[in-house]
Amino acid sequence: MTETTKQPETGLERNDANFVPLSPLSYLRRTVEVYPDRVAIVHGDIRRTWSEMYDRCRQLASALQNVGIKQGDVVAIMAPNIPEFIEASHGVPMAGAVLNSLNIRLDPQALAFILNHSDAKVVLVDTEFAGPIQAALEFVEQKPVLIDIVDPLATAGDRISELDYETFLESGDISFDWALPEDEWQSIALNYTSGTTGDPKGVLYSHRGAYLNATANIVATGMQHHASYLWTLPLFHCNGWCFCWTITALAGTHVCLRKVDPEEIFALIAKEGVTHLAGAPIVVSMMINLEDEKRTEFTQDVKMLTGGASPASSVISRMEARGITLEHVYGLTEIYGPTVICAWKPEWDEKPADERAKLKARQGVRYEMQEDLAVAIPDTLEAVPKDGETMGEVLVRGNIVMKGYLKNPLATQKAFEGGWFHTGDLAVQHPDGYIEIRDRSKDIIISGGENISSIEVEDVLHDHPAISSVAVVAKPDEKWGEVPCAFVELLPGASATEGELIAWLRGRIAHFKCPRHVVFGEIPKTGTGKIQKFHLRETAKSISI
Amino acid sequence: MTETTKQPETGLERNDANFVPLSPLSYLRRTVEVYPDRVAIVHGDIRRTWSEMYDRCRQLASALQNVGIKQGDVVAIMAPNIPEFIEASHGVPMAGAVLNSLNIRLDPQALAFILNHSDAKVVLVDTEFAGPIQAALEFVEQKPVLIDIVDPLATAGDRISELDYETFLESGDISFDWALPEDEWQSIALNYTSGTTGDPKGVLYSHRGAYLNATANIVATGMQHHASYLWTLPLFHCNGWCFCWTITALAGTHVCLRKVDPEEIFALIAKEGVTHLAGAPIVVSMMINLEDEKRTEFTQDVKMLTGGASPASSVISRMEARGITLEHVYGLTEIYGPTVICAWKPEWDEKPADERAKLKARQGVRYEMQEDLAVAIPDTLEAVPKDGETMGEVLVRGNIVMKGYLKNPLATQKAFEGGWFHTGDLAVQHPDGYIEIRDRSKDIIISGGENISSIEVEDVLHDHPAISSVAVVAKPDEKWGEVPCAFVELLPGASATEGELIAWLRGRIAHFKCPRHVVFGEIPKTGTGKIQKFHLRETAKSISI
Repeated sequence: MTETTKQPETGLERNDANFVPLSPLSYLRRTVEVYPDRVAIVHGDIRRTWSEMYDRCRQLASALQNVGIKQGDVVAIMAPNIPEFIEASHGVPMAGAVLNSLNIRLDPQALAFILNHSDAKVVLVDTEFAGPIQAALEFVEQKPVLIDIVDPLATAGDRISELDYETFLESGDISFDWALPEDEWQSIALNYTSGTTGDPKGVLYSHRGAYLNATANIVATGMQHHASYLWTLPLFHCNGWCFCWTITALAGTHVCLRKVDPEEIFALIAKEGVTHLAGAPIVVSMMINLEDEKRTEFTQDVKMLTGGASPASSVISRMEARGITLEHVYGLTEIYGPTVICAWKPEWDEKPADERAKLKARQGVRYEMQEDLAVAIPDTLEAVPKDGETMGEVLVRGNIVMKGYLKNPLATQKAFEGGWFHTGDLAVQHPDGYIEIRDRSKDIIISGGENISSIEVEDVLHDHPAISSVAVVAKPDEKWGEVPCAFVELLPGASATEGELIAWLRGRIAHFKCPRHVVFGEIPKTGTGKIQKFHLRETAKSISI
Repeated sequence: MTETTKQPETGLERNDANFVPLSPLSYLRRTVEVYPDRVAIVHGDIRRTWSEMYDRCRQLASALQNVGIKQGDVVAIMAPNIPEFIEASHGVPMAGAVLNSLNIRLDPQALAFILNHSDAKVVLVDTEFAGPIQAALEFVEQKPVLIDIVDPLATAGDRISELDYETFLESGDISFDWALPEDEWQSIALNYTSGTTGDPKGVLYSHRGAYLNATANIVATGMQHHASYLWTLPLFHCNGWCFCWTITALAGTHVCLRKVDPEEIFALIAKEGVTHLAGAPIVVSMMINLEDEKRTEFTQDVKMLTGGASPASSVISRMEARGITLEHVYGLTEIYGPTVICAWKPEWDEKPADERAKLKARQGVRYEMQEDLAVAIPDTLEAVPKDGETMGEVLVRGNIVMKGYLKNPLATQKAFEGGWFHTGDLAVQHPDGYIEIRDRSKDIIISGGENISSIEVEDVLHDHPAISSVAVVAKPDEKWGEVPCAFVELLPGASATEGELIAWLRGRIAHFKCPRHVVFGEIPKTGTGKIQKFHLRETAKSISI
């Protein structure tokens, strides 16, 4: 700006009247004050008002402090999209703690890594997922307090603790006097991501960032008060892309869903007057493919956010025929979920269907409240020309970017090189500024909305006695978006079949991470010995199922 | 929270990638990037795109720095709602400076006080208001750089500077590389208010607060992208209640209006597809009272925010009959305009008209993004019962509260006593938490949407040689909402008529501040000699015009 800066005047400092740390918890308090009797949460026959839910959140926060939870401690949850997860999204930070949402599809080994790394003091576990948690805990040094969530809608599961969630709540004070964080930079959530390296990385969100993205969702989507939001998107994905707080801010209704079942989705849309939902392309395709006779009709307008892969023209029109408008978004765990949206311009409505689909296939522009989005050469940070052809890395900068990776300053530093968050995704920028992802960061496979680190799968395969060299890449898949495909070079004289290797993997990593195809043969490498994954992807594409 | 706080981990600090000072200027940059060719501003035949407007803002910022404007310097503007005012709302802070919006109805003396107090380095003045500015400048010690705004739609006015706005812009760099403030607490605007004491007080807004209220307007009103906003509300009132930035955030269109003319208002609503406007009750009543044959019809839904006095039942229904829904809001300069809204509950739609009007007459609840609103005993901060009967002072706390009063630490301290901003307004709180103002702070008269300090008027009357004691209170008025009414005790043996006193005042203060009525006689006082304004207000009410 200018060199000389005026001395700030006295008497104009921040004080209790004019400065309050930004936190999504403030939204909960306001919604309870203004709409205590509106329905906050629906789950099967359970319907709770905001007042009832708030009492339960306060009890949870109080009970957590009673068992020794202190500011900055981590409380983990392993559960599908049930009311207890929404309560934890508010109640855990109300205790000053950090919510670590575990991916329910992870195998015990990955869970053990996370629980050890996050040093979780309490684990809330839905009985259906007791198995992997119990197995994981064998490898966890500091045993956390275990609390079973016994959901009436759970169809299977085991008790692994003597303490259940409802009893635990009852031990808490219903009028617990919680406080906002003293500093808005304080952590609110911890979400592990499979990065480009094998070990999961713990992404930390601040209260400030969570507040701003909860709000940014409203500004970007135009979502109105009292939206009815169906939880098809896992709450363990970036805290449900921060919609767990957005819906609270709008005094909307959280409509829970244990499991993505297209018949149930349409039934709930009709029954609960759902106005919004979100999900990976696989959820969209399940909804499209549901037989007509199983689909409950509804009359309201419904908007669905989808990200992870561009919706195809036929997908858009088939969803529209079912009364659901798709909005295309893009994001990553490190940027609190999507903060890029294919902002629709009114003048595009007039274009022919295929052109509209092409426009909607683009990831788009940054959220109003995200500061910067660039497609650039990662080393020089030089923006690529806006020609729709030149590829560069997608870079993001602003208040809706993680604090960093927990206990991983090197990875944090690398992610933030040059003052930008490096997404690892490759894109082009069109002349109108909209970006379009052209290639996923080379090491990530997105299958059914879940990130799979190819390196993690490769590492396990490398341990197999018959294998000398291995590479895992994404193969496009109609149902899952992508599935892993392994390329394997065997040691001289060794032998192995596809079935053997897949069975071997299934004993060691989560099923969804296991390659569906194994290709034997020499793996193409560059002069310096680097595997040319680009060629492998082309080969994988051409393999028929 | 808890006593023991964990040491913050290293590598997780704020950095350039994950922390950017909050500023509404970021919204302008995003809107220009995504919607360069949409119409940003309309004024008569002038239609400028966001790209064109942004260029002009950058030129303005650059030109201001060229004449020596530095961070924290004050740039004043005296103008109606014209494009240059919207440009200044962005361009002045882009230069690092603070925008001081002058009330165009002020008299030279008040203007001189403000210009001296704010130490304005540059004054942008619309030729129609050259007179009072020129008169004021005679009393200003440090002469500011004067720039004439020559608006083609101005019907009168004088040039008082050799420099005009367009020439000034041309001296600026169209690609000026402006920067956000280094600290989001930096001031963006300075708005003088007639407080309960005679001298105007300079209310300072921060970039953070302006950003949050610009956003809060969207969340509270549900305003959508590309809203078309008609500027019936003065931009010099709390920066147009921060809508100068809200409309920018939404890539809407600023539809300018030099003067509140009901025929023109309806014509513009129809011609420009206006979706939103705002204004004091007097604007609403001018719109209602416009003859049918002068009213242009329109088909879109229009929302109008109104505050300052509760809209009457007949007003609400007559506006609805004209296709305009009223939203009732409440605020003050110190809280960035309205941050209290009569949030409408869907279930109220079913109620009979008079009950709906009664509900809508209440000021309501805090904005989602304002932290706290209370009705309390000011000394003890004890909340009054929510019984709709017990009166208390309206207190506000949160991020949408001013930094303080410029060069007035005592007034600032008093305003923030006990960690709350004291509005000086008296209200009751209903059982559902909605507040209803019962009495304006005793010293303020709101006439035609303008605040008049009764003390200021009293001080001037006190100077009259015939007067021994004086009190000025509000008298309800159908057209203006309120008008000042003076009660006067003459010195023994002295004489004066109503006409003489009013003429005397008109030579000394702005016309709109002059009492319409003067009542001679003994003024009722308490035992300690304090004037019982409550009784005077009752008397004033009963005076027929």
